[in-house]
Amino acid sequence: MKAQAPLPGPVPNSIQIDNGRLRHLLSIEGLGRAMLEQILDNAASFAGLNEQGVKKVPLLRGKTVVNLFFEPSTRTRTTFELAAKRLSADVMSVSMSTSSTTKGETLLDTLRNLESMQCDMFIVRHNEAGAAHFIARHVAPGIAVINAGDGRHAHPTQALLDMFTIRRHKEDLSRLRVAIVGDVLHSRVARADIHALNTLATGEVRVIAPRTLLPAEAETLGVQIYHDMETGLRDVDVIIMLRLQRERMLGAFIPSEHEYFQRFGLTEARLALAAPDALVMHPGPANRGVEIDSSVADGSHSVILEQVTNGLAVRMAVMAMVMGANPKGDA
Amino acid sequence: MKAQAPLPGPVPNSIQIDNGRLRHLLSIEGLGRAMLEQILDNAASFAGLNEQGVKKVPLLRGKTVVNLFFEPSTRTRTTFELAAKRLSADVMSVSMSTSSTTKGETLLDTLRNLESMQCDMFIVRHNEAGAAHFIARHVAPGIAVINAGDGRHAHPTQALLDMFTIRRHKEDLSRLRVAIVGDVLHSRVARADIHALNTLATGEVRVIAPRTLLPAEAETLGVQIYHDMETGLRDVDVIIMLRLQRERMLGAFIPSEHEYFQRFGLTEARLALAAPDALVMHPGPANRGVEIDSSVADGSHSVILEQVTNGLAVRMAVMAMVMGANPKGDA
Amino acid sequence: MKAQAPLPGPVPNSIQIDNGRLRHLLSIEGLGRAMLEQILDNAASFAGLNEQGVKKVPLLRGKTVVNLFFEPSTRTRTTFELAAKRLSADVMSVSMSTSSTTKGETLLDTLRNLESMQCDMFIVRHNEAGAAHFIARHVAPGIAVINAGDGRHAHPTQALLDMFTIRRHKEDLSRLRVAIVGDVLHSRVARADIHALNTLATGEVRVIAPRTLLPAEAETLGVQIYHDMETGLRDVDVIIMLRLQRERMLGAFIPSEHEYFQRFGLTEARLALAAPDALVMHPGPANRGVEIDSSVADGSHSVILEQVTNGLAVRMAVMAMVMGANPKGDA
Repeated sequence: MKAQAPLPGPVPNSIQIDNGRLRHLLSIEGLGRAMLEQILDNAASFAGLNEQGVKKVPLLRGKTVVNLFFEPSTRTRTTFELAAKRLSADVMSVSMSTSSTTKGETLLDTLRNLESMQCDMFIVRHNEAGAAHFIARHVAPGIAVINAGDGRHAHPTQALLDMFTIRRHKEDLSRLRVAIVGDVLHSRVARADIHALNTLATGEVRVIAPRTLLPAEAETLGVQIYHDMETGLRDVDVIIMLRLQRERMLGAFIPSEHEYFQRFGLTEARLALAAPDALVMHPGPANRGVEIDSSVADGSHSVILEQVTNGLAVRMAVMAMVMGANPKGDA
Repeated sequence: MKAQAPLPGPVPNSIQIDNGRLRHLLSIEGLGRAMLEQILDNAASFAGLNEQGVKKVPLLRGKTVVNLFFEPSTRTRTTFELAAKRLSADVMSVSMSTSSTTKGETLLDTLRNLESMQCDMFIVRHNEAGAAHFIARHVAPGIAVINAGDGRHAHPTQALLDMFTIRRHKEDLSRLRVAIVGDVLHSRVARADIHALNTLATGEVRVIAPRTLLPAEAETLGVQIYHDMETGLRDVDVIIMLRLQRERMLGAFIPSEHEYFQRFGLTEARLALAAPDALVMHPGPANRGVEIDSSVADGSHSVILEQVTNGLAVRMAVMAMVMGANPKGDA
Repeated sequence: MKAQAPLPGPVPNSIQIDNGRLRHLLSIEGLGRAMLEQILDNAASFAGLNEQGVKKVPLLRGKTVVNLFFEPSTRTRTTFELAAKRLSADVMSVSMSTSSTTKGETLLDTLRNLESMQCDMFIVRHNEAGAAHFIARHVAPGIAVINAGDGRHAHPTQALLDMFTIRRHKEDLSRLRVAIVGDVLHSRVARADIHALNTLATGEVRVIAPRTLLPAEAETLGVQIYHDMETGLRDVDVIIMLRLQRERMLGAFIPSEHEYFQRFGLTEARLALAAPDALVMHPGPANRGVEIDSSVADGSHSVILEQVTNGLAVRMAVMAMVMGANPKGDA
């Protein structure tokens, strides 16, 4: 196992937020509680429109959104593309091989070109931590950058949709116990969720993971650490399961999938340890029978598919906000 | 040669048709004559609009159409994408590797995700018979499924556009002789055309094919079987040529392309055996010099390119109908 | 090194221009000064709209533009796709493998099919000289063809955007000295620029290149030929750098990238030989440190990114004109 480089520190507010307005969305860190709640409120407006049957709005008509994907991710690309189209934006997909960006100047040349074509927004997915920040620091004034996942660092829209989903079901976060379960070490979702939950002053945030799947700095994240499900899940109100990156795991971090499921899989029996109205969440796609039992993934506590629906509303809200538009029409 | 599994039986009406309305389009079987004719009538309205220069209509504005292709098919994907855009729908293409669907639950998870993103229609292309039916049985109530070809089973929009093309040229199908020529065994087009022609009570449906390219159940399909062009083509009003799947054929089913053309290729001399105003049809792309002579494919009897134009009108009609919209505006 | 086939000669006016209207855009040759200036004037209207914040116009609403790419080119495909979307057209991308067009009839079948689907415009990119002309000679009457680059032959929109860029900065072309520097032999850009500059009666057109990178017919092109930068750049008003096709060059045509840069790279010192207000142009993407120094590419004389912006305006103008629409609304 290689030692991993330290992750980039918190982003200064001035990059993400400009005069109280969302300028880019790069990471939950540095966003602040007020802005985070404003995004969730705007997402609620889009979700409300949707429930009234209004699926498409002309807020970003004439804007050009570029999907700038340095690693393939059909799922993420699809959700952003759909969100952009529902805002009536034009969408371009530009797949970038990471090899062509070995020299930093090549990436900058690509950015300058897209800027010169008057593109308005870059959705960036990259396998290296800090890539979206790098791009945001170098784009022209009018252009917004949204981080769609960079290495093991940040995945802010996933955290936002998780918070949105929790808020729709649980009124008072200050009295909530939330457990995040599984491969925290490799998960950009875990990191983003922990920051978001703490920013929203959640009552208690727990992490349940084997020692091999916890980052060294775990204690500094402001969470309670557990190494077994039986004590960790007790009385929690929300369970956020993480996806096991199976291909990268076997041998190195966990003995076998079967043994992992025995110790950390979410079963009906373990779910019974949580609060009676506990939510079960998962960023998808779930490995059924590895980190979660099918009956739990499809059961009455699961809000996994609702997360997908909420993801669209949250992405529409963020895309509208960084362009200075909002669902109520007063930019 | 492997033995092939029996094909799925007819689809119960209740899946394709709901309260007299087209709900999905999965196969010609189970559609019924009234619905089949209603689709053709609606397609005629779209063709009429088109001839008046109206190429794009706002019938499906705000709807999201997903191209769900499990086997590559640029040609089919393009026609459905174009039909969707001409109806003002948003179109997403999702290429699915069949490997990722080895476990049925993975496919279902993908469907649930797309449903949760409020997609409205799935265009399904799969190399296994019954795939579109499987998906139709499992989608959420508001979502429509259109079969764009599954294995050697069904290809209903091709049959519909063939019927539409015949109806535009020949008034009374009950007095028509139609010959389907070539590789009936591997052709989803042949199967669908035979069912459609019989549903419309066509006077006589003939199949002309070498014994090696006829399915075992050929006799049960309600057709006259011929093994040579000279008797089979005599006095027919419509000739539907099938495409020879050259890569799968040689050695196993036919001695050589040259010999195939000698025995079953459509030449000017053979065309002269048919009725003087016979139509020559082909689903495309034609293997010139293998199943059809270039001079016939491009000749005055050929309506091959008209089939392409009609395919757009038929697909627009089907997509509008499964969404509860129709070209005359009264949904 | 293979001997290269002679390039197609000039295109008769009647193919590109019909009754004084732009019908196709295939090459600068045969376009004539009046039409060339009309395109530049229309591009100026689009650029003007853009500067007023109007990025999207409904001129081609309902039209279907097909990107017909026989060789991959993300960059070119992207600019045409963006130009089409900003004109509100529907865009389809059809990647064609050149293998499938070994037989000419297959390409024609594809064209006939796309025509039958009522596509309106083909953007053609092919690695063989004359491909776009071949397609233009065979398309149906209503359909327009735009050459997006064919082999080492033509690349007319690049030449048009170069002329547009020069005109925006320099009033009187008849008193201008323009130098084209680098791999003239393999460059479709060089050929197209030379023809455009001569058509616009530019004062003096120079070519600066090593002998190995000059075509045999160089003397017939109406240019002054130089083999060193020091004399060639003296007092020029515009420097058009060409991209070195590095992968095809080494060994065969140039000794090494380092030595090439020593002799033909554009440095600040060499730029100082040109006129004080000289423009530096490059079709992109630039090989920094090979044909151009980074400080020059990013310096105050460089209009490289402006070329990208102008490329959109020029492509919008051409696409609108071949469809009989223009930015002022009087078709």
